[in-house]
Amino acid sequence: MPFPSRREALRGLLRAADLDALLVTDLVNVRYLTGFTGSNAALLVHAGGEAGSRFSTDGRYLTQSAAEVPALERVIERAGACALAGLAAGLGVRRLGFESDAVTVDAHLTLAEAAGDAELRRAPGLVQQLRVVKDDSEIAALRAACAAADAALADLLAAGGLRPGRTEREVALDLENRMRGHGAAGPAFETILAAGANSAIPHHRPTAAVLRRGDLVKLDFGALVDGYHSDMTRTVVLGPAADWQRELYALVARAQAAGRAALTPGTEASRVDAASRDVIVAAGRGPEFMHGLGHGVGLQIHEAPALSAAGSDTLAPGMAVTVEPGVYLAGRGGVRIEDTLVVRDGEPEVLTLTGRDLVEL
Amino acid sequence: MPFPSRREALRGLLRAADLDALLVTDLVNVRYLTGFTGSNAALLVHAGGEAGSRFSTDGRYLTQSAAEVPALERVIERAGACALAGLAAGLGVRRLGFESDAVTVDAHLTLAEAAGDAELRRAPGLVQQLRVVKDDSEIAALRAACAAADAALADLLAAGGLRPGRTEREVALDLENRMRGHGAAGPAFETILAAGANSAIPHHRPTAAVLRRGDLVKLDFGALVDGYHSDMTRTVVLGPAADWQRELYALVARAQAAGRAALTPGTEASRVDAASRDVIVAAGRGPEFMHGLGHGVGLQIHEAPALSAAGSDTLAPGMAVTVEPGVYLAGRGGVRIEDTLVVRDGEPEVLTLTGRDLVEL
Repeated sequence: MPFPSRREALRGLLRAADLDALLVTDLVNVRYLTGFTGSNAALLVHAGGEAGSRFSTDGRYLTQSAAEVPALERVIERAGACALAGLAAGLGVRRLGFESDAVTVDAHLTLAEAAGDAELRRAPGLVQQLRVVKDDSEIAALRAACAAADAALADLLAAGGLRPGRTEREVALDLENRMRGHGAAGPAFETILAAGANSAIPHHRPTAAVLRRGDLVKLDFGALVDGYHSDMTRTVVLGPAADWQRELYALVARAQAAGRAALTPGTEASRVDAASRDVIVAAGRGPEFMHGLGHGVGLQIHEAPALSAAGSDTLAPGMAVTVEPGVYLAGRGGVRIEDTLVVRDGEPEVLTLTGRDLVEL
Repeated sequence: MPFPSRREALRGLLRAADLDALLVTDLVNVRYLTGFTGSNAALLVHAGGEAGSRFSTDGRYLTQSAAEVPALERVIERAGACALAGLAAGLGVRRLGFESDAVTVDAHLTLAEAAGDAELRRAPGLVQQLRVVKDDSEIAALRAACAAADAALADLLAAGGLRPGRTEREVALDLENRMRGHGAAGPAFETILAAGANSAIPHHRPTAAVLRRGDLVKLDFGALVDGYHSDMTRTVVLGPAADWQRELYALVARAQAAGRAALTPGTEASRVDAASRDVIVAAGRGPEFMHGLGHGVGLQIHEAPALSAAGSDTLAPGMAVTVEPGVYLAGRGGVRIEDTLVVRDGEPEVLTLTGRDLVEL
C-alpha cells in the first residue's frame, strides 16, 4: 500500500514549511494520499503522524471508505473540510496549511472560522510536488492505460473501423468502446477525432462529419485505468498520402523525435519544448504549432510538469509526460503525433507503443 | 439567442448589488451567459451594457469562439481572467465583482493585482441565481436529455439486455451506448448499475458482479444533450419479486409520489424533502434513507436548489429538479425511484416518462 508512505513523504514537506498539518481538500490529492475514490472527502495530514491525522467523507461512503481507507480515523460528515478544521486545534495543530490553489475565497472564510485557534496558512502545491514523480504502482497503472489505448487502436484498424463513410462521432465511440473492452473504465478525456480540414483544429470535438478518401484523420485519445490517464495522438491518411500530407507528417515526426530525445533528467521543461519546436520553426511552420509541447499525466490528464515555453520545472526520473507537437494548416488539415512517456536515467520509457510511421489506409 | 438576454438579466443583479461589472470565471456560468463550450474562458459582464463587456479564451478556440460568441468583443489570451481584470479599470469599472465561490484564494491574489484601480468585491452565486429558473430553450434541452434516457432504457429492456448472467459493467455500458444512439453526447454522470446486495449502496460503481435471478437491480443514469443533464433511477427485479422486495418498492414509490406532489411554487425545498421522507420515517425506515430527496439539474448534474432537510430555496415555476427517495437494506438490497421534473404552476411537469410500476423481468 503506497498511501501511508505518501502521507509520510508529505510530512517531510510539512515540517520543511513549518506547518503542523495540512488540510487536503482537492479530491485528486485526497485520492493520491488515501486511495479513496468517492466524490466527497477531506483529509487532515498531521505532521506528527497517523494518530493525529483524520479522513472525512459523508454517509454515502461509509462502507466504501472503510474498505479504501482502513488506516485512518474517519469522521463521517457532509462538510468534512470544516469538520476537520474544527478538530485541528484539539489535535495540537497551531499552523494549519490549506490548499490555497484549490480552496475558494468563500470556502476559506468558512474554514478560518471553523479552525478557531488553529491559524490557516496558504500552502499551495505541496501534494502536487509529490505527485509529479510517479512511483511504481502509478507507472504500472499508466502502462495499463496506455496499453488499453494501443490495443483499441490496433483493433479499430484491424476491423477496418477507420474508413471513408463513417462519421467522426461513430469512430470516436467505436474507439472508446474498444478501450473499455481492453480494461479501461472509460476514456481519459473527450476523444478528439478530426477528419479532413477539421484535423487542422487542435481541439476538435467529433461531429457528424463524414470521413472521406484522402483525408488526414487525427485521433487524440486515451484510456482511464485505476484513476490514471493515458494520452496518445496518431494521424493517418485515408488512402495514399498526397505530397503535402507526407511532408507535413515527416516534419511533425522529426519534431516529435527531437522532443522525446530531449526528455532527460536535469533538463528544464522549456528546453524540451524548444528542442521540438526548433525543428518546426526551422521549417517555417512556427506559427502553425500554436500550443505547448506536452504536459504531465497521472491522476489528472493535465498536471505538472508543463512542457511549454514557460515551463520551469526540471525533469527528474519517474515524471510521466506527453510529447505532442502538431502543425495545423487551416482549411487543409493538420498532423499531431503524441506519446506518453516516463523520464528515466538515459532514454525515456515510451508507454504508448503504437508505431509512428505514416499509416495510409 | 438567449445569451444576450441572460447577460441583460445579470446586469439587473449587478446594479442591485452596486457592482460596475462581474468577472465570470466559472466555466459553466460562462457557458450559460455566452454559449461557449470550450475548456478555457472568462467573461467580463459590464453593468453598462455589451459595449464594455469582454469575452476571453485562448488561441486554440479562435475559430470556435468566433462562431459561438459572435456578439462580444474577444480577448485572445491564455490567462483570460487576469487579462480581463486588467482591462476593467480602463472600461470604467471601479467595483468589480468576482465569483468568490469559484475563485481560489491564490487566483484571487493574482486577480487583485491585475485589477489595479478596480476594487475586487466578493459576489458569489449571482449567475446561479439566474440559472435556477430554466428558460424554454433549457427545458427543451432537458426534455431531450430525459427522452434519450427513457428511450435507452426501453431499448435495453426490449432487447433483453437486463438479464441474469451479464455483469453490472456490461449493462451500464450497454445503457450508455443506447443513450448515445438516441442523441446523447454521452452519459450525464457515471452510470450507477447495482445488482443484488450492491443495490443497497446508494452510490455504487458498476463492477464485474454478475446479475442473478431474484436480484433487485438499481439503474441510476442520465443523458447529456446540448450541455444539459437528465437524471433518472429505476429499480427492477430479475424474476418474480419476493414479498420484502415488493413491500420495499411500494414504500419508496409512495414516498416518491409524495415528493412529486409537494413540488409546487412557493414551497420551501426542505418541505418537499420532508413530505417524501415522512412516508419513509412513518414506516420505520428513516435511517435507511440517508441522503437528500433531490437536487436541481441543468448545465450541471447537481445544482441549486437542493431538496434536502437543509434546503432553504423556495420553489418557483421553471425550476428543474430530481425527486429520488431510496431505502437501502444493507446486505440485502435497496430501491430508489427518481424522476427529473420541472416545477410548474399547479402540477409539476415530469420529464422522465418511463413508468414507475414495479417491473419483474
